[in-house]
Parts: sequence; C-alpha cells; structure tokens
Amino acid sequence: MNKIEHIGIAVNDLKKAVITYEKLLNSPVYKTEEVASENVITAFLQCGPNKIELLEATAIDSPIAQFIAKKGEGIHHIAFEVDDIVAEMARLKKEGFVLLNDIPKHGADNKWVCFVHPKSSNGVLVELCQEIK
Amino acid sequence: MNKIEHIGIAVNDLKKAVITYEKLLNSPVYKTEEVASENVITAFLQCGPNKIELLEATAIDSPIAQFIAKKGEGIHHIAFEVDDIVAEMARLKKEGFVLLNDIPKHGADNKWVCFVHPKSSNGVLVELCQEIK
Repeated sequence: MNKIEHIGIAVNDLKKAVITYEKLLNSPVYKTEEVASENVITAFLQCGPNKIELLEATAIDSPIAQFIAKKGEGIHHIAFEVDDIVAEMARLKKEGFVLLNDIPKHGADNKWVCFVHPKSSNGVLVELCQEIK
Repeated sequence: MNKIEHIGIAVNDLKKAVITYEKLLNSPVYKTEEVASENVITAFLQCGPNKIELLEATAIDSPIAQFIAKKGEGIHHIAFEVDDIVAEMARLKKEGFVLLNDIPKHGADNKWVCFVHPKSSNGVLVELCQEIK
C-alpha cells in the first residue's frame, strides 16, 4: 500500500457538498464523473498527495443510497493506492481478508479497483486501487 | 490543508485491530500512546505520507465508546495536516464551519489539534492538526 489514494464520502446532495468541501479544503473540485455501474456521481478534490471523493447516489439501489439510509451521510470508504492490485488481492486473501471482487473492476478516476469487506477490517470498507495505464 | 495526516478508526479491541491492520497495510505499528484527556489508547501505522490511527476507549464516557455504541466500529475522523492551525481555524470559522475547540488542544502524536463539527461537513468529523515543534 503506497498511500491513502482517497477517502470516499457519501453525501445527499453533491452540488451542496462540493461547495462545502471546496471551502473546507480551500481547493476546487478538479473532476466530476458518473460511475454508471455503481449508480453514483462523484466529484474529486485534491489535498496534497491525497484526494477526497464525494459520492451521490443516482438510484435508490445504489450502494451509496443504502449506506446513507443505514448510517447517514459520512465517510463511506478508504482507498489505498497499490502498484499491483492482483498481487495485493492475492496477499490479502491469503491473510484471511474477504474480498468483494474476484477480479479488479473498472472504478472512477481511471482506476482498477477491488473492495475488502468491512467485516474483515473493523467496520471499514477498504478499496484497493491501481491506476490504469 | 497539506495532506490527509491520518484517518482515525474506532475499534473495540486495540490488540486485535493492530494484528488486522498490520496485515492489511503490510506494515508494523510504530507507536502506541494513551491520550488521557480523551480516554483513549491509540496505535499508529504508516502508509506512505499518511497514517492510520486505531483508537480504543479506556472509559465508558470516552468519545470513542459513544461513537461505537451509536454507529459500531469504523472510521471516526479524518485529520488534515496544516501549517498554521490558528490561521486555519479562523479561516474555517469565517467560512461558517462549527469548530469544537476555541483554541488548539494537545492531541496524540505530538500535535496541536482542533475538531470541526460533523454537521458542518456532511457527517464527517474533521480534525486539523499541526506538529508541535
């Protein structure tokens, strides 16, 4: 794991949250992107070597809508940058972590991603991500 | 805000969580520390430029115990590194954020810290931290 690539934050209203986080971080959103497979729209802000990803659901069965219904708005996941996602997935599986994807899938922000079940990591939804080159 | 300094994770059992996160990050805990004023014991792991802080309550009225009782184990706060915490607190207050401390207080890992109320930031408890020199 090289660094925290980003923190994903589940929000009800992306436009309002963008205004809040641009003020908080004193930095503009540099990208918005829809991830149709996850039924979310996202906005990214840079913070030094790290990013904040704001996520709004675009459908009622989106994982983000389900998360907010259960827990309210807040931090949804931590994503760690890795160099070799397939090797890291194999390492974590061997260590007993439960992976939510058998093979890396195409995520937001030009990344291969894989999620680790929160029950493996004290309630924290962990994402591995590797830049697609 | 220079970077995500650390992510704080509320756990029930620090010893077990340390084993889990050392495996997850493939990196050892480099420091454990009790913060008596917050009724917590903490363990830190490095991940490139960022850290993970695991937090276990040492008293039933600890903020961490209250968090777990309400939401279960999971991510408790995001801490951002700043160069001048007093200036950053003034900037955020002017922008309408609700600060939980009027003056910086002494936090874990040799830092001046200040918390921002989660109602100001979409349910996310934000910490500002500046290294004490």
